[in-house]
Amino acid sequence: MKDKMTIILFSGELDKALAAFTLATAAAAGNMDVTIFFTFWGLNLLKKPGLVMKKSALLMQKMLGFVNRGLPLSRLNMLGLGPWMMRKLIKRTGAPSLEDLMKLARQLGVRYVACSTSCGVMGISREGLVDEADEIAGAATYLEAAGKSKVNLFI
Amino acid sequence: MKDKMTIILFSGELDKALAAFTLATAAAAGNMDVTIFFTFWGLNLLKKPGLVMKKSALLMQKMLGFVNRGLPLSRLNMLGLGPWMMRKLIKRTGAPSLEDLMKLARQLGVRYVACSTSCGVMGISREGLVDEADEIAGAATYLEAAGKSKVNLFI
Amino acid sequence: MKDKMTIILFSGELDKALAAFTLATAAAAGNMDVTIFFTFWGLNLLKKPGLVMKKSALLMQKMLGFVNRGLPLSRLNMLGLGPWMMRKLIKRTGAPSLEDLMKLARQLGVRYVACSTSCGVMGISREGLVDEADEIAGAATYLEAAGKSKVNLFI
Repeated sequence: MKDKMTIILFSGELDKALAAFTLATAAAAGNMDVTIFFTFWGLNLLKKPGLVMKKSALLMQKMLGFVNRGLPLSRLNMLGLGPWMMRKLIKRTGAPSLEDLMKLARQLGVRYVACSTSCGVMGISREGLVDEADEIAGAATYLEAAGKSKVNLFI
Repeated sequence: MKDKMTIILFSGELDKALAAFTLATAAAAGNMDVTIFFTFWGLNLLKKPGLVMKKSALLMQKMLGFVNRGLPLSRLNMLGLGPWMMRKLIKRTGAPSLEDLMKLARQLGVRYVACSTSCGVMGISREGLVDEADEIAGAATYLEAAGKSKVNLFI
Repeated sequence: MKDKMTIILFSGELDKALAAFTLATAAAAGNMDVTIFFTFWGLNLLKKPGLVMKKSALLMQKMLGFVNRGLPLSRLNMLGLGPWMMRKLIKRTGAPSLEDLMKLARQLGVRYVACSTSCGVMGISREGLVDEADEIAGAATYLEAAGKSKVNLFI
């Protein structure tokens, strides 16, 4: 039996996503079964680019984003600078990019679960998610996996 | 023996509180013993409405809030918009409100512990907390519960 | 065999650092083996004061800081107010300061590990870290410790 790890990726911020995928790929490379639950803002990472969302979801995102963090909706496509600038800066430091880490995670068999409640709130169906998403499931599925895991993190 | 879960609710932000109570209610509904430790900003959720706090606590909250997140003191009563607007938006997405989840959590027997250190810093005594708070206790109480739990999250 | 706890200290914010060290010192005082992994912004707590960092790291920090939280680089030396004001406010509430807690943590044998990836991104070598840092190590070292621990938190 392999050791297991779960990560709830709640945050949609680049720095936290980098931390989550660095841990997930290291664990999978070390022969652990890893499941990432994408919830709330973290769901942005599983969303097909250009997806049109429910107007109420957009409004709520805008409000929560503004109220809670002063952030624009899409946390990976931010400011006028855009992601190319961010990627360039990260590349200059020699660290792998989020895209690299996400690709590696899939190659290593990391399981991606999209939170069903969050999908509902955001108005996203299966078709709105990238192919890499293994399933849409609720908190009960998370708790079952977490109960069998040695390491459970909320990021 | 029931499986156990603990959540440290450090954050006072609505989105994180929703995540914490979604997990807590799902776990309790699945027959787990759940304890939530309300600490720092999370303590706001256990505070009686309209409670007057120590001036130094207010000042510190204001500073930490401003410095760390650009947020006003009460994260659930924010902006001119007020909570009714937030609630309305969440209701439109079909998800349960934080109030619903908190009521459900109590019905399912989720245990609420207020962090004693945070109560001290915020200048809150037992009388300042809502009736739902089961006790005021310190980190040692948390660690004892966490040591016996399968899932421990910091939110 | 002592029970073990790990904390990933990702955040460089004062409130979260206080929470991490309150938990770490309580656990160590209760005879647990505690390891703190300082990663990303949390690494600031292990950085020698006045350390000059890579220009690209500075740029990235600035961008991530600005983009994600509207915060200046050094989260413990913030605003014109400076840390003396923050410390004064915390002292007025009677709680121990972060410096007190960090000193106590070392006296109680809490182990400090600096994340090697973060050190690379930030351009920090062993000489750039305070003497209290026990080692620089990667995610694999964290996962090994976390796999043997009863409580694992990401803060």
